[in-house]
Amino acid sequence: MSFSPLLEELIKSLQCLPGVGPKSAQRMAFHLLDKNRRGAQQLSDTLAHAIADIGHCQRCRTFSEDDVCKLCLNPKRQQSGQLCVVETPADVLAIEQTAQFSGTYFVLMGHLSPLDGIGPDDIGMDILEQRLSQEGIEELILATNPTVEGEATAYYIAEMAAQYQVNVSRIAHGVPVGGELELVDGTTLSHSFAGRVPLK
Amino acid sequence: MSFSPLLEELIKSLQCLPGVGPKSAQRMAFHLLDKNRRGAQQLSDTLAHAIADIGHCQRCRTFSEDDVCKLCLNPKRQQSGQLCVVETPADVLAIEQTAQFSGTYFVLMGHLSPLDGIGPDDIGMDILEQRLSQEGIEELILATNPTVEGEATAYYIAEMAAQYQVNVSRIAHGVPVGGELELVDGTTLSHSFAGRVPLK
Repeated sequence: MSFSPLLEELIKSLQCLPGVGPKSAQRMAFHLLDKNRRGAQQLSDTLAHAIADIGHCQRCRTFSEDDVCKLCLNPKRQQSGQLCVVETPADVLAIEQTAQFSGTYFVLMGHLSPLDGIGPDDIGMDILEQRLSQEGIEELILATNPTVEGEATAYYIAEMAAQYQVNVSRIAHGVPVGGELELVDGTTLSHSFAGRVPLK
Repeated sequence: MSFSPLLEELIKSLQCLPGVGPKSAQRMAFHLLDKNRRGAQQLSDTLAHAIADIGHCQRCRTFSEDDVCKLCLNPKRQQSGQLCVVETPADVLAIEQTAQFSGTYFVLMGHLSPLDGIGPDDIGMDILEQRLSQEGIEELILATNPTVEGEATAYYIAEMAAQYQVNVSRIAHGVPVGGELELVDGTTLSHSFAGRVPLK
């Protein structure tokens, strides 16, 4: 028997967060009520605001509170002629952190998965095809995950892009920098050998 | 540069949760927006509701949305004559889960800590003293943490209770059940020897 039904409800609600079980939720609830009510109030407001306003960018499908996101609106990026296809908005953030890419993105929000009923239109292939046909895209960089579904999705997009005379490339797979060869799995190592580049 | 200032605000707000850093907050934000907007809305509502309504029980100081919490209002618990003093509401939940104690609680919401400026009145000693003088409490069980501050707090309460002819007891310290003697620290083992009980 608990001493507060509302507290119990809060602990239960906090478990909607990924990786948060009953014990962590309890710790979070007590922490917020005891030490950070202001932060909790702000979290409540921001959450409500975000759920109401954040939708998808019309051009790249990433999360955005505007019709077209800030990255797509950037004229320098539009002029680069490079379009990078990724699976999730988190991938966009990861690539942005490298500061190596200055083109625009297209976010699939998933990957092709016929067994789960996810077909081309569910991952925005119609929007991507429209962009390939209308915009002067020079290079399409496929940065889907190196999984079976990610590879299949990349292959599907490459086939589609072939109709529009767009150069298509796939990000390199191989041994991670700083990793030890001994600890790398066999498939990655095979990819690393197959994709070897001449030392100039 | 991010693609959505509101999303960035959400990721920052989620970091008010204990144990949640930038990466976890990002994962949580994407998960909620992508897969569980309903859960997020409920979390936002419950948080706002909890912050506005949850205060402290007037009798035991634990978190409660009512003036007096459900445990304190239970007549069976009131008649038991046992009062258990703990540091936090989480301790109440932990003891309740054992289903071994059927008295009422008093929650200090901390412990004596003169260096941090936390004196007797900050941990509700005045309310506890009033309860000891007015209610027919037969046994006061001190279940503060076995830390230096917890022990000092227990000692302080024991001194105070001596004026009111109340039996005072302290929970046993010793080797945890299921633990291995080899791995138990020296202080706990000393306590365990000092507090040995005769086998009947």
